[in-house]
Amino acid sequence: MQNIVCFVSDFGLEDTWVGVCHAVIHRACPLARIVDLGHQIPPFDIRKGASVAAAGVYQLPEAIHLVVVDPGVGGGRKDLCVLTGAGTRLVGPDNGVLMLAAERAGGVEAAYAVDPSKIDFRRPLGTFHARDVLAPAAAALACGVEPASLGTPVPPDELTPAPFANTVMDGEWVVAEVLECDRFGSLRLRVAAEDLKDLGLATTRLEIGLGHLALEVPFGQTFADVGEGEPVALVDSSGWLTLSVRTGSAADRYGIEPGATARIRGLAG
Amino acid sequence: MQNIVCFVSDFGLEDTWVGVCHAVIHRACPLARIVDLGHQIPPFDIRKGASVAAAGVYQLPEAIHLVVVDPGVGGGRKDLCVLTGAGTRLVGPDNGVLMLAAERAGGVEAAYAVDPSKIDFRRPLGTFHARDVLAPAAAALACGVEPASLGTPVPPDELTPAPFANTVMDGEWVVAEVLECDRFGSLRLRVAAEDLKDLGLATTRLEIGLGHLALEVPFGQTFADVGEGEPVALVDSSGWLTLSVRTGSAADRYGIEPGATARIRGLAG
Amino acid sequence: MQNIVCFVSDFGLEDTWVGVCHAVIHRACPLARIVDLGHQIPPFDIRKGASVAAAGVYQLPEAIHLVVVDPGVGGGRKDLCVLTGAGTRLVGPDNGVLMLAAERAGGVEAAYAVDPSKIDFRRPLGTFHARDVLAPAAAALACGVEPASLGTPVPPDELTPAPFANTVMDGEWVVAEVLECDRFGSLRLRVAAEDLKDLGLATTRLEIGLGHLALEVPFGQTFADVGEGEPVALVDSSGWLTLSVRTGSAADRYGIEPGATARIRGLAG
Repeated sequence: MQNIVCFVSDFGLEDTWVGVCHAVIHRACPLARIVDLGHQIPPFDIRKGASVAAAGVYQLPEAIHLVVVDPGVGGGRKDLCVLTGAGTRLVGPDNGVLMLAAERAGGVEAAYAVDPSKIDFRRPLGTFHARDVLAPAAAALACGVEPASLGTPVPPDELTPAPFANTVMDGEWVVAEVLECDRFGSLRLRVAAEDLKDLGLATTRLEIGLGHLALEVPFGQTFADVGEGEPVALVDSSGWLTLSVRTGSAADRYGIEPGATARIRGLAG
Repeated sequence: MQNIVCFVSDFGLEDTWVGVCHAVIHRACPLARIVDLGHQIPPFDIRKGASVAAAGVYQLPEAIHLVVVDPGVGGGRKDLCVLTGAGTRLVGPDNGVLMLAAERAGGVEAAYAVDPSKIDFRRPLGTFHARDVLAPAAAALACGVEPASLGTPVPPDELTPAPFANTVMDGEWVVAEVLECDRFGSLRLRVAAEDLKDLGLATTRLEIGLGHLALEVPFGQTFADVGEGEPVALVDSSGWLTLSVRTGSAADRYGIEPGATARIRGLAG
Repeated sequence: MQNIVCFVSDFGLEDTWVGVCHAVIHRACPLARIVDLGHQIPPFDIRKGASVAAAGVYQLPEAIHLVVVDPGVGGGRKDLCVLTGAGTRLVGPDNGVLMLAAERAGGVEAAYAVDPSKIDFRRPLGTFHARDVLAPAAAALACGVEPASLGTPVPPDELTPAPFANTVMDGEWVVAEVLECDRFGSLRLRVAAEDLKDLGLATTRLEIGLGHLALEVPFGQTFADVGEGEPVALVDSSGWLTLSVRTGSAADRYGIEPGATARIRGLAG
């Protein structure tokens, strides 16, 4: 899977941008396999792009991930190639959109500001670095070029951070942001599967506070662990603690949007 | 076309699910060619998924068809591989979503409950059998594995049936369900092209009753057989008898939705 | 990039049409690489299809471009293969949808009415020439077949023209149609990058009249040349003069839709 390029953007599918980037990658590295992870990110929505990219990296850590949500294109922001502790390679603008994914893949090991002169780029168009810098950089990685060959090192602590609140403890409560809402209305919270035990959430029931709501829900393996229309907490394919309603929408039921704060604690079974 | 995997789902294109399944298939069978037939099926809409899959199978019977609309994922329902009389291979959950396609491809010849231990699956996640069971099964078929090697036989009469009313005769009338409405507003009826003669509909004009409506329409070859904005019956690319309005929408014009019942009879030319 | 087939249509992604065309091309020419440039063209919208195709051809002139927006399918209109002065190969119906792209790629050098009997087509279905004629023709080109082998020549002046007003001078003003609005709300005008100098628009500020509006805007390289929410004229990736609002929507801000007329003149810096 070393040659798979996963591609996330806010380009939509009505215009030529996604396809043109595909063509650029095909041309630069015919052996690359491009996988579209999602191009319907709302325009300029760095949060949603970061969430989708993180879910992709969690499931496909050995692939290259090209992530383009880039309201600052053409301004001073850097074009980045990030190598993570788990060996995942990320390409995208330095605006935080890569950072949740990096966190899920072992943290930032090294970062490079991509230098168009280092590989055979055309002169970057001010409005379309995805085509002229980022897609060619991803293609170079897919064909075996080392990240360090693409540009100049950037100290990890100078990277723009992810646009989410850190998860913290408040007494016995875990306070975590609602990262996103998926197509089926499930709410993904910034609590990673691998941290459940340390946070005291490895139990069979959870209490979840969302605004004025206080829910007690079973912590299950799948939607079918509860009856139709009933809520359940589970770890979904994104690897986040998730609040779902079986064959319904948790977001609609509880009126919750991404960015809300959830308070969670484990209950005795 | 033995290695083409046609993929239908209700995953949408905003999240990582479709792309992750692509990556899983690429990894398991690099020779597979994946063709996305449609991922905008409304969430949990088994009817629409079944209709789109049937249209795909009608046009591409020699391909493998992976169909995922799966409200019961993680519950007791089986993951199926179905082999049809015409040799088409179908993969999807046992909730009826494969059965209209099977009917169009010669009926169910054999069915197997896919057993994750039979091939190199990861432990199935309760919420994402598409990634962990169904896509790997489709990839195995694309690389030449026999359906019977994927699991244990299921008697065809134990499969969950398609979620549509059977087409029946009522005197000289054919009573058929409106299967679906396409992007252009055309209404597809559950009358197969190959059955038109036997049903007395191989004529040049049809009478179609839909609710309170009684329409007399020409039975043409194409939209251009009638004037702009006029109705026409024809057999479209899905292979179903279809009611269209030239450069307009039959669904909007007549206020008809999928699931409605149509009464059709042939008229003397 | 000789074997890349760029595909634009109004088929949407809810039905099987796009995927079936992919499968047909895979089968006919396994070496072809298909790039989807956009299938969300509104049904029957030849203008939008022509604009997206022209943007694709501008960026990828060496690829084959298959463009299907075809309200007249099954009627008398020809299925075309067009060879341009710059060597670009275009395939689509003779309804004008190819002509803006042809104009951007050196004009029509030769055109052919595709004859299904010339290559191994199935008998064309009246409602789906894309599958039965146009996609096979594009696949044939991708595998090296010469355009002239696909059918009979059509004199360029007999082709249906592009559905846009020609750009003209009115004194010092350039009068140009708004071709389209992109996902981010940018308005693309029918003024090609290569004509800016001749039209007196190679300046640092422009005056743009749109209906009752009269705007003075800087002519920049990128969105970041102006402040948040401010307007800027630039040449975007489509190669057209474009009116944008930084991290906003020019279309919403000014209430302008495709088809409107813009009056533009260069201002002294």
